[in-house]
Amino acid sequence: MVKHSSICFLGPLGSFSHHAAALVAENRELLPKVTITDVFRSVDNDECTEGLVPIENSLEGPVNETLDNLFYKENIFVNLEIELPINLVIASIGDNFDMVYSHSHALQECREYLSRRRLSKIIPVESTSKAAEMASKDPRSAAICSEMAARLYGLKIIDYNIQDNINITRFFLISKTEMQKGNKSSMIFTIPHISGSLYHVLGKFYEEKVNLSMIYSRPLKNIPWRYYFYIEYEGEKNHKLIEKLKGVTTSLYFKGSYEKLSNNYTRL
Amino acid sequence: MVKHSSICFLGPLGSFSHHAAALVAENRELLPKVTITDVFRSVDNDECTEGLVPIENSLEGPVNETLDNLFYKENIFVNLEIELPINLVIASIGDNFDMVYSHSHALQECREYLSRRRLSKIIPVESTSKAAEMASKDPRSAAICSEMAARLYGLKIIDYNIQDNINITRFFLISKTEMQKGNKSSMIFTIPHISGSLYHVLGKFYEEKVNLSMIYSRPLKNIPWRYYFYIEYEGEKNHKLIEKLKGVTTSLYFKGSYEKLSNNYTRL
Repeated sequence: MVKHSSICFLGPLGSFSHHAAALVAENRELLPKVTITDVFRSVDNDECTEGLVPIENSLEGPVNETLDNLFYKENIFVNLEIELPINLVIASIGDNFDMVYSHSHALQECREYLSRRRLSKIIPVESTSKAAEMASKDPRSAAICSEMAARLYGLKIIDYNIQDNINITRFFLISKTEMQKGNKSSMIFTIPHISGSLYHVLGKFYEEKVNLSMIYSRPLKNIPWRYYFYIEYEGEKNHKLIEKLKGVTTSLYFKGSYEKLSNNYTRL
Repeated sequence: MVKHSSICFLGPLGSFSHHAAALVAENRELLPKVTITDVFRSVDNDECTEGLVPIENSLEGPVNETLDNLFYKENIFVNLEIELPINLVIASIGDNFDMVYSHSHALQECREYLSRRRLSKIIPVESTSKAAEMASKDPRSAAICSEMAARLYGLKIIDYNIQDNINITRFFLISKTEMQKGNKSSMIFTIPHISGSLYHVLGKFYEEKVNLSMIYSRPLKNIPWRYYFYIEYEGEKNHKLIEKLKGVTTSLYFKGSYEKLSNNYTRL
């Protein structure tokens, strides 16, 4: 039973998902969850009305746990896309550290900085804010995290914007409500194991003049080397396209139409 | 300068890449490297004649660091594919542990086991054999690793085959030699930013009756939300196909033809 409006997000407090959730929260309660799968589960069992999860990073690619949950949880839909520049800082309570905590994605994104600073004692932890918490307990360590997390845990920021490249993450606001209006839509499908299957699926988009903005494949866990496909396209739910796709796919899940919220604040 | 034949692999000793490398080594020297990028770098600068890296896992999908290196290192090619069933064990020197070390991929693959055993103190480290090494120093901890690694570090195996599903990893033997014969081939390309681009690329494969066995997209790090595509197809280098593809792609890298070596040993 849903008691009131609330958004679960991939925590802990100070995470980039928290930041994205805060941008759209208005007066909804914000609840941190430990994993992306926990966020989906909380929306599924009505503990929260909505969830906030990362879907793709411009450097590291899709967030597989989010894609897999969108595929396996048929009753959960995308309601809004939020684009957030990810500016990473390195921060510590000490002046002399030789150990760095961060999330594995963030560590990947700062490879050049870490190599230039000859920081090789790297400890991956489950989130950038967990990294900030760990660093707040040990002056010989630093965290790579958001400015928000560094401040939350009382760390001194040593360098700003240490990521290798322009770094943007897209987040999804998800719920059990399917929306059919918006300037983008998401869809997931599987295809028959015959020659030209994917080609014929893409042909239906081309016939209907629908532009794909991305396509990712993910393994079907129960059959090695078989895949499902996640697609985003420009425009809203297109019933004629969906009817045509039904003829060339083995399963098809429309995951909602939605608008994009762009946020260009680089500092909180 | 290459002094003698050698294979660099994603280490440390006892890793699944080590196992795969040992299967094909004959009398070549085996050299462990810390990261996949280090393996590519060692092949590139002739420290090793060949490299051995994971390319895809049947549960977790592609290994992004391998795909990105194949894309950015134009002079490195695939010479052989090795398929290996990944059987994970949990092992410890103690009888009473509450902390588990492993690589993040392996941890993902054992989610159900960890949840059933209520093991929530999880520490991701850079490899499954590093996990075994860590667990060999602390009786309150266990490692999720290969049987080979557990034995190498003197751990007692508590449970075998703890992964959620059938779990197979494909590895590539890479070198600077482009081979054009084999029953599979790999290719990487980018496409123009216009409607129907990917559809037209797949059309060339269809026209030439070439079956795709997989397609993955990865972000181009310098331009947000633009992608390169990695494709594997059945059959060897097809010059007519390549000529046709040149007309519909913005860049195209043939990455070699190769045979597949399947290994059905589940225990070492």
